[in-house]
Amino acid sequence: MTIGALRERMADLIDLSALSRLAAWDQRTMMPPAGGPGRSDQLATLERLAHERATGDEVGGWLEALESEPLEGIDAEIVRIARRDFDRARRVPGELAAEIERAASEGQDVWQAARAASDFAALAPALRRNLELAREHAACFDGFARPYDALLADYDFGLTAARVQAVFGELAGPLASLVAEASSGAAAAPVPPVAAQQAAVPAVLARIGADEEGWRVDVSAHPFSVGVGLRDSRITTRYGEDDLLSVIAALHEFGHALYERQIAPELARTNLGTGTSMSVHESQSKLWENHVARHPAFATVIAEALTAGGFPGDPVALHTSLVAVRPSLIRVSADPVSYPLHIVLRFELELALVEGGLEVPDLPAAWNDGMRRLLGVEVPDDASGVLQDTHWAAGAFGYFPSYALGCLIAAQLWEALERDLGPQDEGLARADVAAIRGWLAERVHRHGRRLDTEPLVEHATGRGMEAAPFLRHARSLVGVH
Amino acid sequence: MTIGALRERMADLIDLSALSRLAAWDQRTMMPPAGGPGRSDQLATLERLAHERATGDEVGGWLEALESEPLEGIDAEIVRIARRDFDRARRVPGELAAEIERAASEGQDVWQAARAASDFAALAPALRRNLELAREHAACFDGFARPYDALLADYDFGLTAARVQAVFGELAGPLASLVAEASSGAAAAPVPPVAAQQAAVPAVLARIGADEEGWRVDVSAHPFSVGVGLRDSRITTRYGEDDLLSVIAALHEFGHALYERQIAPELARTNLGTGTSMSVHESQSKLWENHVARHPAFATVIAEALTAGGFPGDPVALHTSLVAVRPSLIRVSADPVSYPLHIVLRFELELALVEGGLEVPDLPAAWNDGMRRLLGVEVPDDASGVLQDTHWAAGAFGYFPSYALGCLIAAQLWEALERDLGPQDEGLARADVAAIRGWLAERVHRHGRRLDTEPLVEHATGRGMEAAPFLRHARSLVGVH
Repeated sequence: MTIGALRERMADLIDLSALSRLAAWDQRTMMPPAGGPGRSDQLATLERLAHERATGDEVGGWLEALESEPLEGIDAEIVRIARRDFDRARRVPGELAAEIERAASEGQDVWQAARAASDFAALAPALRRNLELAREHAACFDGFARPYDALLADYDFGLTAARVQAVFGELAGPLASLVAEASSGAAAAPVPPVAAQQAAVPAVLARIGADEEGWRVDVSAHPFSVGVGLRDSRITTRYGEDDLLSVIAALHEFGHALYERQIAPELARTNLGTGTSMSVHESQSKLWENHVARHPAFATVIAEALTAGGFPGDPVALHTSLVAVRPSLIRVSADPVSYPLHIVLRFELELALVEGGLEVPDLPAAWNDGMRRLLGVEVPDDASGVLQDTHWAAGAFGYFPSYALGCLIAAQLWEALERDLGPQDEGLARADVAAIRGWLAERVHRHGRRLDTEPLVEHATGRGMEAAPFLRHARSLVGVH
Repeated sequence: MTIGALRERMADLIDLSALSRLAAWDQRTMMPPAGGPGRSDQLATLERLAHERATGDEVGGWLEALESEPLEGIDAEIVRIARRDFDRARRVPGELAAEIERAASEGQDVWQAARAASDFAALAPALRRNLELAREHAACFDGFARPYDALLADYDFGLTAARVQAVFGELAGPLASLVAEASSGAAAAPVPPVAAQQAAVPAVLARIGADEEGWRVDVSAHPFSVGVGLRDSRITTRYGEDDLLSVIAALHEFGHALYERQIAPELARTNLGTGTSMSVHESQSKLWENHVARHPAFATVIAEALTAGGFPGDPVALHTSLVAVRPSLIRVSADPVSYPLHIVLRFELELALVEGGLEVPDLPAAWNDGMRRLLGVEVPDDASGVLQDTHWAAGAFGYFPSYALGCLIAAQLWEALERDLGPQDEGLARADVAAIRGWLAERVHRHGRRLDTEPLVEHATGRGMEAAPFLRHARSLVGVH
């Protein structure tokens, strides 16, 4: 009976979290601007009720009872993950959690102004406060070798700073050299007009299976995806005259959404029925972004869609433009080869900040040094340097690594996929991605939260996380071998 | 302290109900079709959590404590209405509530098929079941003279079958005569093409104050409105080649939404901060539909918007067409004069069904007799007769009267408004509705749930509900005095 009560509670939490995602999606795509304050109230209430239901004493009672029962299969996994989530949630005192949330919210407000004025000093006090709270947060947990590991566990349970350092260590030197060597001097290809992009995005998505029966595509300032329900996937993109981000972002978000859709049906409405970690989630978006959307064969599909939208697309020029290496200041518009170097820098810095090796006032200089060392670019001002991302201002330390780990895992998965299925060029030129979807479903998606990041990578590829596949992919992209 | 706890709980319930409205809006306007089953789960969970929080023993404890305190002003009103809602919710056993919901849901499914086949016999068992359950539901409550009164209280607390019978008694005879006398033989004016309507609807709404800062207008199969937040109002309409319902429906839904927006700010996030009843809500939509959108002066505004949308609109022809009396079979497309007669019939029938004077198998014949008697039309089949509405199949007995009471109250309010402010023709021709909005805010909207239907009508107009103002309005519409 107790497993029934636990499962019912988990289903409640799944539904509340779906409603929360719906409300967030609506806020970013549909809500009239004046709805903002009301929406904050609604989301805060939802969050509070979900927290109460996730951390109530009755949940602890069910878990204790269940842990002495001989459970098997999914039920055993449900209890194992429920225990982990319950303990993590209960260990953070309510006051600290509220203080972290308040400081994060204030930090973001301060950051907006500081970035606009390119004034790091204006952000420094809020950053110091967030760091103090992050350390207090880390101190709530036992069993971690380093404070940073405790923070990382919120995003990627089971990863450690040491593991990230090892993988990034394999990556950084060779990649920095490759970027220095491969930087493209070629002029960028002309960007298709917005109208052609607006026609192409849904056309490309429809060809890879994002039909109107179960998907929506909308516009938002920053592209994102949500699964509101198992068969209700929503992705957004944005359209500009300066790049072809619209198509790339749509494929990226498609990858996130597909992951959630292809989790095994028997995990639906349980605590196992969602993506396992930030890194693995990002690997799914990066796989569709880097290995499908930027694949030379898939350029034909994009070009056809742009042509149908009134812009004569040339696959070769398109592909060249989508993979050109141009080391630059801003992470979110970085090319696919130099992108992980932006993350390597952020990881080094946030690790040093959390562990005390770097003081907040020294952060801008360290940032600028790192950009020079890793990407060979000079940072002209903090707005296009250390102030460009909102994460630290929002108290998110430990989040950044997943962006680069996602790139690495994607490359590793793609190699394994092509090893199993053979080269995908022919299928990709026809937008036939059924085999890719099937392989991902079987090796990655269906497991939900049953496997953590590195065990999942091992299960899918036969090896732990490593940098070599990404480096091989990067070399092939730029034609350096 | 206890009032603080009660207020906090009420705020929770307000937020949960806003999320529920958002999810329902999304389902009808945005959701990919495959999201349906997931959305049902989400809404059911939300409803269950809200019910738990509304009916928990702790709420009863707070109310008992507060009822012995010397509260004043809003706090006293919060407690009075909370007690009413709490007692009503607690008196219905959980099993009965679930059974009512299940039967309603099944009844709607059966109704879809029965209407499609024009087969009343197929619906009859579900209807009998709904009626039994409605009687059981009514029996849960004390203090009502008749079972129907207990059902009515779910929609219009304080109204009684006797009161509705009295008001409809004043209405039915004179209105049926007027309809018979005034039925228009004139051919309908040409309907503006959909593109012109699609341009006109937002243009007209913008002129009466539904700006993009706080409003949305979308399309749905059946027009509706929701206030997701205090400053987030969403209305829908639908576009067709056969009538100008799009503009009429938009103004109707604007009236509902404006009511919620103009409730006094100090009632926000309390149990008082919403419309008081179905009848008063419908009076607000009907006021904007019948007295603004169908006002001869406002035809100029609609015509201008249609002209800007590419269809040369003629105010006189437009107005004539919007008020032409054409007794017909279908309630939702009835003209504004004959509309309440459709409701008078439904009220007579559902009252007899609930109180046992009419058996389910005799319902179609009674319906057809009534249509002949009240509207002078012959019903060719049950699909366009007794099967046209979903309400009874969904177990909603006691809901129908509000549709006609809304028309009557709107006319009564409009007379009072013009008595206070003078004729509105000049303002309406310029879409200047500031005085109308202000009067409604002061006399009707700001009170929220502090006044029930009839006390509110008395407060706003100095008289109880009556049929005479609507009859005067109807006569003026058709030029019969």
